[in-house]
Amino acid sequence: MQESCNMTTPTTVSHVAGEEILSWAAKDESGHLAPLKISRRPTGPQDVRLKVMYCGICHSDLHQITNDWKNSSFPMVPGHEIVGVVTEIGVDVECFKVGQHVGVGCMVRSCHACDSCQLGLEQYCPKVVWTYNSIDTADGTPTQGGYSAVMVCNQRFVLRMPPNLPLDASAPLLCAGITVWSPMKYFGMVEQGKHLGLVGLGGLGHMAIKFAKAFGMKVTVFSSSPGKEKEAREILGADNFIITKDNEKMKNAAKSIDYIIDTIPSAHSLDPYLALLKTNGKMVLLGVSTQPVQISVHSLIFGRHFVGGSLIGGIAETQEMLDFCGAHNITCMIEKIPITYTNSAMDRLMKSDVKYRFVIDIENSLKE
Amino acid sequence: MQESCNMTTPTTVSHVAGEEILSWAAKDESGHLAPLKISRRPTGPQDVRLKVMYCGICHSDLHQITNDWKNSSFPMVPGHEIVGVVTEIGVDVECFKVGQHVGVGCMVRSCHACDSCQLGLEQYCPKVVWTYNSIDTADGTPTQGGYSAVMVCNQRFVLRMPPNLPLDASAPLLCAGITVWSPMKYFGMVEQGKHLGLVGLGGLGHMAIKFAKAFGMKVTVFSSSPGKEKEAREILGADNFIITKDNEKMKNAAKSIDYIIDTIPSAHSLDPYLALLKTNGKMVLLGVSTQPVQISVHSLIFGRHFVGGSLIGGIAETQEMLDFCGAHNITCMIEKIPITYTNSAMDRLMKSDVKYRFVIDIENSLKE
Repeated sequence: MQESCNMTTPTTVSHVAGEEILSWAAKDESGHLAPLKISRRPTGPQDVRLKVMYCGICHSDLHQITNDWKNSSFPMVPGHEIVGVVTEIGVDVECFKVGQHVGVGCMVRSCHACDSCQLGLEQYCPKVVWTYNSIDTADGTPTQGGYSAVMVCNQRFVLRMPPNLPLDASAPLLCAGITVWSPMKYFGMVEQGKHLGLVGLGGLGHMAIKFAKAFGMKVTVFSSSPGKEKEAREILGADNFIITKDNEKMKNAAKSIDYIIDTIPSAHSLDPYLALLKTNGKMVLLGVSTQPVQISVHSLIFGRHFVGGSLIGGIAETQEMLDFCGAHNITCMIEKIPITYTNSAMDRLMKSDVKYRFVIDIENSLKE
Repeated sequence: MQESCNMTTPTTVSHVAGEEILSWAAKDESGHLAPLKISRRPTGPQDVRLKVMYCGICHSDLHQITNDWKNSSFPMVPGHEIVGVVTEIGVDVECFKVGQHVGVGCMVRSCHACDSCQLGLEQYCPKVVWTYNSIDTADGTPTQGGYSAVMVCNQRFVLRMPPNLPLDASAPLLCAGITVWSPMKYFGMVEQGKHLGLVGLGGLGHMAIKFAKAFGMKVTVFSSSPGKEKEAREILGADNFIITKDNEKMKNAAKSIDYIIDTIPSAHSLDPYLALLKTNGKMVLLGVSTQPVQISVHSLIFGRHFVGGSLIGGIAETQEMLDFCGAHNITCMIEKIPITYTNSAMDRLMKSDVKYRFVIDIENSLKE
């Protein structure tokens, strides 16, 4: 972050020491969210303090508040698609200023020394500290996320939000956006004129369409839900939409796709999708399924295909993605909700009933 | 091939029309090989006719003579690691001359019009004609391979063998060599100083070590056979050898490998090997297992890994590999056998009892 910093007039506003910060938390793995007051550390020399304006609801929030991944600690304030306004900066912070729109994504600390950190891929650092449900290595306290009025974060993990974009619709870029962007760029899946297949049209999937169209690609959505076709084509700009149960159309689409992004977070066979790939075609899995996937070796060998995986993205990649979104006016399609609706939103999320991301209006609804 | 041709004095020698060509064939899926006389077409304008000197025995020969892949036609003359001496060239052939050392690999024809052919990857052409157990689209006859005194092949599928290399030990380059070379180059697994893990030390695997060492890479062999260690280190030049049942050593090797080549031709779990990969690590499967492989999605996602597959290589790639082998004096480690030993060799191959490739001495042993 600091390398591209060109700010010269840092300003600070003191926060109230020991203040209790209104948040919403899950107290146990029932996953029910309710108000909870938490504390945040005082703004350290390297810290940025922000008033949280909006926070997206990621599907992993739902996994974690219900202890699906068997590593949850409670009470837990979820949320890692956090955007807000800087209210205070540490004495060593030169790249952010009070009043600036900033974001915090899935990570708040890493070692900056390991191979992954050296590659700018802090998310694979063995010592990475996640934004919530993690222990902050700096002080041993549990980290707490963005369903909260205030966030404090080391400047190395604070992102500059594009000033021209609405903050609410930009919040999910910090997880859904970068989760799609990073593999598209790293695996070389952004070439103009190439044909992208998308499996799973949700929070991640709709960003894949937006990015692919910005890169000048053709997009075909593969879905089990006929009801998604109209919006996928007319609003999101997909070029084609194929119902996966339509064997005839699936057969006709064989060997027509250059790259596939698969966001389905549960076990499923990959072979029907690998059959869609051209020679040298690539498929990337972004949904964190706890069950293994089965792949026929023939599906990989006969076409020089690969199946890859990817986890969010590094901080530098995230800033690059945000800058691209600013330049191309790309935001997420969201359903903005008050925090009192969050438990209902989680119920709907479990049924994939959202287009395409819930974003909590923290500023206007998180009150005593 | 023609692009790099600079020969100016083609010479032709007539062959005997209608001659019966001594070969060895499997007559049914018992896989037993016995002498059979076959015919080859007259040398057409685009054809190269060669006296076969040596032919390697590929594991797929064994699969095909026993109908493991359920697509075998009999009688079948196997063999697609064919090297010999040109005895006649067609009138339109300008790039080969009588007396030249040449090779024929796994393919003898393709459409040259499809996307794969345009990429120089004829092996993925929907109309590819395999060297044996295939129907030649030119005349509708079954193709027959290199366990045979004579081969006739369209010039586009004839390779120039490096004149400085012994023909017998070069034969397996045409399948084992290119099968390893193509993915190493395509998937970007040849960087000096990087660490290659090899799973499965056989015909393909030993070539992977040779190529990797020629590229200046570090190589660790992962094997279930302690008896292979000495040779892997002392003859082939592997830097390290880890017994896969040694949990402690496997654990210590976690996240230490950049790329893995896996040549095991049967179903096995990939997760223990994916755990060896560094961030951005890559794994390529080259063994054609008929059973699907299972992969935990976590193994891919947490490290931005991928698992790819690859099938032999295109003709241009194959020539590039042969030229590299000539320049670096790379050949295969072989056990040269008379054709009368071929059935015994197949029995031993079934038990992986060969270091590392059987090569049949066609010239000296294929007699009436």
